[in-house]
Amino acid sequence: MPVRQLILGGARSGKSRHAEQLALATGGAVTYVATAVAADAEMQERIAHHRAQRPAAWSLVEEPLALAQVLRAHAVADGCLLVDCLTLWLSNLLAVDDARMQQEIAALYAAVPQLPGRLLLVSNEVGWGIVPDNPLARRFRDEAGRLHQQLATLCDHVTLVVAGLPLALK
Amino acid sequence: MPVRQLILGGARSGKSRHAEQLALATGGAVTYVATAVAADAEMQERIAHHRAQRPAAWSLVEEPLALAQVLRAHAVADGCLLVDCLTLWLSNLLAVDDARMQQEIAALYAAVPQLPGRLLLVSNEVGWGIVPDNPLARRFRDEAGRLHQQLATLCDHVTLVVAGLPLALK
Amino acid sequence: MPVRQLILGGARSGKSRHAEQLALATGGAVTYVATAVAADAEMQERIAHHRAQRPAAWSLVEEPLALAQVLRAHAVADGCLLVDCLTLWLSNLLAVDDARMQQEIAALYAAVPQLPGRLLLVSNEVGWGIVPDNPLARRFRDEAGRLHQQLATLCDHVTLVVAGLPLALK
Repeated sequence: MPVRQLILGGARSGKSRHAEQLALATGGAVTYVATAVAADAEMQERIAHHRAQRPAAWSLVEEPLALAQVLRAHAVADGCLLVDCLTLWLSNLLAVDDARMQQEIAALYAAVPQLPGRLLLVSNEVGWGIVPDNPLARRFRDEAGRLHQQLATLCDHVTLVVAGLPLALK
Repeated sequence: MPVRQLILGGARSGKSRHAEQLALATGGAVTYVATAVAADAEMQERIAHHRAQRPAAWSLVEEPLALAQVLRAHAVADGCLLVDCLTLWLSNLLAVDDARMQQEIAALYAAVPQLPGRLLLVSNEVGWGIVPDNPLARRFRDEAGRLHQQLATLCDHVTLVVAGLPLALK
Repeated sequence: MPVRQLILGGARSGKSRHAEQLALATGGAVTYVATAVAADAEMQERIAHHRAQRPAAWSLVEEPLALAQVLRAHAVADGCLLVDCLTLWLSNLLAVDDARMQQEIAALYAAVPQLPGRLLLVSNEVGWGIVPDNPLARRFRDEAGRLHQQLATLCDHVTLVVAGLPLALK
């Protein structure tokens, strides 16, 4: 039976590691879907650091934009898809254009309930600080918040990770 | 019996919608107290968006500053007051002056335990990010934090909303 | 038996007060370890404000950098050490240099499991907002996040404080 889980948390909260432990615990094949684009040295370092910590047996798919399409292509009944992370994906889409972003978000909402197997979606909480001066940053946190709310309705479990510790929200 | 509830959450966490569902579930008359001032196009759009989602039967009171006075004027034993949101109200008061802000906060603390009926107070968590460079922003998040702590002692229930999901804190 | 507790929360969340109540409830001697340095008038005011709220019987140790050394020097089997707060300590260390920071963090990880008595560690959640533009701020929230994760594994209890209300994470 498909099980869908949304794993939320702040920066360096341990949300990725928690999702990776959940993926490992399935005991089956894991496809890791990375949304990060190595645009600069800092990001390259973060990506390399994350990659070094993942099991070598996992498949890796890198996709900054067409997330739903990739999920549909790789989901199998006895496998686990781990997406890390949705906020980077959203941020990549915001840098393209609004129409594409809305189209990809709608495609994700359509795909999530239909995918076979296990699905783990990792995303950053970004709206708990002062309202940003930057209009694009405000837009981004609005979109991220809406995305989390909608995915929470589509997922079986929602977990908030704080200091590496999971808190079940659903 | 009066029931007072504080509903906290980050931006676009679904806290307003959660409060609205609680208000609807009372089955009685609801007065929606909006603290937003439509200072610019972005805010006008947000206000219109929120308004369109609320039941037409609800009364609407708009008050950016004199919140306690408005609550005392509209509270009835079999009704529900929904205030959305306290951080905007605080931000409006900070833009006036400090004396007025402290006076209105004290008036709110005095009013909350005395109001008849149901009271739902929505507010933004704003202190979970990096310390802001801007002294006014630091002041604002300090005031918001103190306000939440004090109201939490005056309320019967405190709820944290994450991704649209309520987490009971009290 | 030693009991170690990490108390996390946003700015003005009531985390310090919660830790102080836990320290008071031990009924024994309390040593308050302050990591704040009064670099400017705003910080002096915050320090004075915190100090005025603490019991006069508590010992006070001020140490911005060599935290592990101070904890080892003051820990006693029937006493309680209250450190407020770790994020300020981290921020002090970041302003010195990287080697010193890593050395002090390693020393803390080594000390925490070995200290006799009760240990209360207060720290700020800082990674729940938009990614900061400032590279040093990004570095700081990464280090704070890693610190919280590691200390959470070393502590018996981890508590998240929101609006003055404690939420047990471990």
